Amino acid sequence: MVPKFTAHQQPAEAGLAAVSQGNSSRFDHWLLEKIYQAAGRPAIRLALSNGPQVSPQNTRPVATVNIRNRRTLFALLLDPDSGFGDAYSDGRITIEGDLVAALEEFHRTTPPLESQSWYSRAVSHCLSLAQRNSLRGAHSNIHRHYDLSNDFFRLWLDSQLIYSCAYFPSVAMSLEDAQAAKMDYICRKLNLQPGERVVDVGSGWGALVLHMARHYGVTARGFSISHEQIVWARRRARELGLDHRVEFVEDDYRNISGKYDAFVSVGMLEHVGAEHYAEMGRVIDRFLERGGRGLLQCIGRNQPRPFSNWVHRRIFPGAYAPSLRQVMDIFEPRDFSILDVENLRLHYARTLECWLERFEAVEGVISARFGPEFVNTWRLYLAGSIAGFRAGTLQLFQVVFARGEYLRLPATRAYLYTDEAKEEHAAVAAV
Amino acid sequence: MVPKFTAHQQPAEAGLAAVSQGNSSRFDHWLLEKIYQAAGRPAIRLALSNGPQVSPQNTRPVATVNIRNRRTLFALLLDPDSGFGDAYSDGRITIEGDLVAALEEFHRTTPPLESQSWYSRAVSHCLSLAQRNSLRGAHSNIHRHYDLSNDFFRLWLDSQLIYSCAYFPSVAMSLEDAQAAKMDYICRKLNLQPGERVVDVGSGWGALVLHMARHYGVTARGFSISHEQIVWARRRARELGLDHRVEFVEDDYRNISGKYDAFVSVGMLEHVGAEHYAEMGRVIDRFLERGGRGLLQCIGRNQPRPFSNWVHRRIFPGAYAPSLRQVMDIFEPRDFSILDVENLRLHYARTLECWLERFEAVEGVISARFGPEFVNTWRLYLAGSIAGFRAGTLQLFQVVFARGEYLRLPATRAYLYTDEAKEEHAAVAAV
Repeated sequence: MVPKFTAHQQPAEAGLAAVSQGNSSRFDHWLLEKIYQAAGRPAIRLALSNGPQVSPQNTRPVATVNIRNRRTLFALLLDPDSGFGDAYSDGRITIEGDLVAALEEFHRTTPPLESQSWYSRAVSHCLSLAQRNSLRGAHSNIHRHYDLSNDFFRLWLDSQLIYSCAYFPSVAMSLEDAQAAKMDYICRKLNLQPGERVVDVGSGWGALVLHMARHYGVTARGFSISHEQIVWARRRARELGLDHRVEFVEDDYRNISGKYDAFVSVGMLEHVGAEHYAEMGRVIDRFLERGGRGLLQCIGRNQPRPFSNWVHRRIFPGAYAPSLRQVMDIFEPRDFSILDVENLRLHYARTLECWLERFEAVEGVISARFGPEFVNTWRLYLAGSIAGFRAGTLQLFQVVFARGEYLRLPATRAYLYTDEAKEEHAAVAAV
Repeated sequence: MVPKFTAHQQPAEAGLAAVSQGNSSRFDHWLLEKIYQAAGRPAIRLALSNGPQVSPQNTRPVATVNIRNRRTLFALLLDPDSGFGDAYSDGRITIEGDLVAALEEFHRTTPPLESQSWYSRAVSHCLSLAQRNSLRGAHSNIHRHYDLSNDFFRLWLDSQLIYSCAYFPSVAMSLEDAQAAKMDYICRKLNLQPGERVVDVGSGWGALVLHMARHYGVTARGFSISHEQIVWARRRARELGLDHRVEFVEDDYRNISGKYDAFVSVGMLEHVGAEHYAEMGRVIDRFLERGGRGLLQCIGRNQPRPFSNWVHRRIFPGAYAPSLRQVMDIFEPRDFSILDVENLRLHYARTLECWLERFEAVEGVISARFGPEFVNTWRLYLAGSIAGFRAGTLQLFQVVFARGEYLRLPATRAYLYTDEAKEEHAAVAAV
């Protein structure tokens, strides 16, 4: 099924190609071919400006990647992800055709980790050392991404600034409704009861904490180490008149105090780092009550694999998406029972599609403020993430766990999907 | 919450105790106390016939364990599980009160593995070596349990001889209906389509293979290494006129040939052994089609822990229930995506309750044929399993996995729980 490849020149470009015939062109050709091989021979055409190109043999290319110069070819060969990302950002690479479809094709042919160049792996290793999530490291890593400015995220996230995978009971649902559905889904998976104490670790701009307090009658405390997020969340709590039942703490999860009936963490594990999972398990074990339970939502992988060097350098310093086996390092040593794991990767693809659509709609505003290179960087990040979730190189796990003593969940999951259950919760919320 | 313990004698038994006063009685007392400590101080009274007893201090005992003689005390101290099991089987131990409740209490206070005696651990190690699941070892292990005789299992299993956890959408459902509901649930989780090829690894007496072929229009092949089961399943296929669409093969899973769209395995992983999981993953990878997916149902644990020595010796030689992290050793190396994990432990408790009830109803028949010791052994095994699933020392995992390419599952799990979906499948089956 993988299209066979032969390097060749399109007849239409024969004239142009003739100009640059000779050793130089043959060398470029050889470079292109190497790059194509390293990418796992995708159904993509690679073309050097005014130079040779390579195309898949037995299939129509999904898109054409135009590469400006030989310097970019070298960069692509040395470290494909960073080479591609940086060149796309500054315009040395352009895509002819659908960007997401092209990236999806690259994702589908991604070669295994072992076959990456020594240079890519060395850079990856150095980045992971430089971006360790120690108490100080985590603070700096989080600051670089989330404190980019609330105004930036407000331009293309939903009105509540929810920066994680939504839940679409129907594909036609709006992003706003799907984020509300996600929060309800989480609360119902946790079977929250009025008066319970909940801790949200990595509470972002506070939407879930506020939703739980407002609709499920719980007392909730959110932790984040992003100053901008905490300030925003506190203001929202006051506006909604919920500040007597919620609290937002600007601190690391390792410093959480108090006791809680339920734990929730959405899109935060990616910033913890696999080497800290056992420690995270100890922290949860310390603050979770005897009958306690929790829900963890995070981006995952089928197999351990770091994010690309480009994502580490340009988007998420210190981020890591674990395999499910690695996630178990949090729960297994503390004797927690895993009750439910759901893979919602297609929901994250849809969420990101909504974000990218909104992002494109305000592209001019973002470009005027942060520059066109920044726009390209974020466009590539959003489109690449859609591609990864669609192609299945990225997963989205929702994991429900509990102490052995916790037995209050209904025996089947049907209650999550019936209107009766929804109405019941609405009644509880109205009390 | 753990009741404090002090060794003491009940006033009512003061007369009896006075008879055996002296060094001998003090020694028995000391033995009882040691046994009680090793059991994690459960809310259970331990009483030596015509001798001392120990009781929990601040709580009513759930039941009383009557121990006949000092020899049994030694056996309990040396290897609590085997000591208890063997003595219960031959009548040296009797339980006053509810057997399941008593065992559940023992399960709740089960101390961690590290605190087991060196002797218990040594026996456990030797058993695991002696009962290895090599091709030959697996055959011998399986033969010892499943070839006990079809007639024995027919006495207390449901009419289709389904020897695994059922699914109870409502607690009041009969065992027969709950087993049918389980098979439907599995088929729907797999989203089986008419004409697809399915392999059932560890197909038992064939019920699931027959159900899939009959109601979901697939071609199904079952593998088992129990001769008695294969003979039975082939006969049932002929009786139901399904032998053109199903096949039962008496062979090890490692020898499976052919290509399949879906894999299913229910209650068989327990006999594979954790050291063979990577190999099992390779086997699945070999026979599963590009767009393939599968479902694995097995007894599990929160943490790695062997079955008790008694279970290994008397019931299930070579059996092992993995933690979810260990289960991932099957899937992670082959790049399978985990789509769904559900913990159905309370459903297994209910299933076992039904079995035990039926078992007790025909106790006389079984006793006449296999002897009273055999009845006690199986009663303890069934009751102990109920206790383990209730207390949460045993889990029941249903894991759905797929290759990255598989995208045909609905985006939400709601379809599993709506009557519309059921009707849709009924319509497909009727075609």
